Amino acid sequence: MRIGLDMMGGDYAPKTTVGGAVLAFRELPAAVRLVLIGDRDKIIPLLHEHKVSEKDFDIVHTTEVIEMAESPLRAINNKPNSSIGIGFQMLKSKELDAFASNGNTGAMMVGSLYSVKAIEGVQRPCIATVVPKEDGGVGILLDVGSNADCRPEVLCQFAVLGKMFSKYIYKIEDPKVALLNIGEEEEKGNLVAQATHELLKEMKQINFVGNIEARYIFDAGSADVVVCEGFVGNVVLKEAEAFYKLLKKRKISDPFFDRFNYEIYGGTPILGINSTVVIGHGISNEEATKNMILLTRDMAEAGVSEKIKKAFNP
Amino acid sequence: MRIGLDMMGGDYAPKTTVGGAVLAFRELPAAVRLVLIGDRDKIIPLLHEHKVSEKDFDIVHTTEVIEMAESPLRAINNKPNSSIGIGFQMLKSKELDAFASNGNTGAMMVGSLYSVKAIEGVQRPCIATVVPKEDGGVGILLDVGSNADCRPEVLCQFAVLGKMFSKYIYKIEDPKVALLNIGEEEEKGNLVAQATHELLKEMKQINFVGNIEARYIFDAGSADVVVCEGFVGNVVLKEAEAFYKLLKKRKISDPFFDRFNYEIYGGTPILGINSTVVIGHGISNEEATKNMILLTRDMAEAGVSEKIKKAFNP
Repeated sequence: MRIGLDMMGGDYAPKTTVGGAVLAFRELPAAVRLVLIGDRDKIIPLLHEHKVSEKDFDIVHTTEVIEMAESPLRAINNKPNSSIGIGFQMLKSKELDAFASNGNTGAMMVGSLYSVKAIEGVQRPCIATVVPKEDGGVGILLDVGSNADCRPEVLCQFAVLGKMFSKYIYKIEDPKVALLNIGEEEEKGNLVAQATHELLKEMKQINFVGNIEARYIFDAGSADVVVCEGFVGNVVLKEAEAFYKLLKKRKISDPFFDRFNYEIYGGTPILGINSTVVIGHGISNEEATKNMILLTRDMAEAGVSEKIKKAFNP
Repeated sequence: MRIGLDMMGGDYAPKTTVGGAVLAFRELPAAVRLVLIGDRDKIIPLLHEHKVSEKDFDIVHTTEVIEMAESPLRAINNKPNSSIGIGFQMLKSKELDAFASNGNTGAMMVGSLYSVKAIEGVQRPCIATVVPKEDGGVGILLDVGSNADCRPEVLCQFAVLGKMFSKYIYKIEDPKVALLNIGEEEEKGNLVAQATHELLKEMKQINFVGNIEARYIFDAGSADVVVCEGFVGNVVLKEAEAFYKLLKKRKISDPFFDRFNYEIYGGTPILGINSTVVIGHGISNEEATKNMILLTRDMAEAGVSEKIKKAFNP
């Protein structure tokens, strides 16, 4: 298996991305080859600092970068030789089995849609965030990405995408799927939530357990997969970030709340595309980068993308 | 000033509602008269337990109650002799200057709209929640109530309602108003947020500071008033409740996080109606009930409703 890594994107590239790649290399079996896409002249000395040889990796040289603040669409079109641009070309031509980056999230999404493309039948690929559960378990919330407004049919597709992620990565046999809402009764919510509830009820391929209020999302046993529009999902994600930041600032440490630390999870896959693409946080450190690479391997190894394809094209 | 209190609504009525009324009575000047609407035979013994005389209060007897789970619209129509029903009749006929309840929130909203009615020009009255700021200050977020879907014009009205609440109750001279969004750039967000941003920019009567992401809402100096649709606002409120509940469960105490305790704030006014109506949490204890009554007095004394009326009908 060949996993491509963007060595240019992210706030602390290439130092921490190389550091994370070395940490991952030490954990991964020889059959997994890491392909470092970035500035060879910077990468090699950093590898040597970590006492590993450049022969343990493939290096694809480039010095062009898509900056964090750049317009994704324009950047993907105008910078084919950027690390992200090269990564997607290699993914498309199957020189890579998977691609991961701490860089520009929008460019990763646009690059995915342009190169390997959405799976047939999937209207809007999306990204999920991990929801730590009180009992140590893991739920997911999706979309938290760029699908700010969603039609009910799209939310129903997120239910399937989330189910597959939960099942094949978090090993939950029949994930409980819930709709994020402002009340438990089925007639509650905004118009989109009301219509979505009706549709989810009829879906035989998911284990729909009804509406869930935000006050219960961290409770064990409540729901493994929570579906929502990208706007509200992103708000939920960022409010959790606010709490975590405030806890840290107050030096409050607690085994449950420490699991809000993004470093543990490493990143989020783009769900619903014809390959494995994982996006890490821009401020990822070496540990987070390593975990992003391991998640990428897990996604590719489990064949989540192929399983989603089968679910949408039975 | 005469403040009506629902002695039937709330999970622990009438014991804690009477207890809260007694606590408030001890703090309020003689010019403020509390009117207890509920079961005289239960209220009087409870007053005696607290060593106060029934002569210190007005008591309006009823035994009919609108339950927490009842349909608001039906309950208001069918139960004119319920404590909430009587409260609104007295408010409408000006036998009361203000009315407060820990009971059915929906019935309080419907009752307000049916009796004292929305202020001319206000399309959708709404309710706000307090957002504790890191520096000890107080922001507000609105709507967190029943306006799940909002048109941009309605969100612009919330900006004015929130400004008036912030200015006259929290004494912030020129409150900074922000739009809850998923990015700071003005083109970010769902369609409603994008359109609302455009309109808010043009409003001269508010100090619009742009979009705010949920990760910054607790930061000092970020925004005093945060405007959003009721759906997302309610989600933000309930996620904060989830965090507070989990902190308490872990016995983590901290001066900042303790301010997420609803008891401190006592309740939320309905903004945009022709009188003063305040709703407390169903699980309010005596302290919370007292604070609900004091907030009701503050709202009525400051004439927030009249000031909103003037702002909408200059």
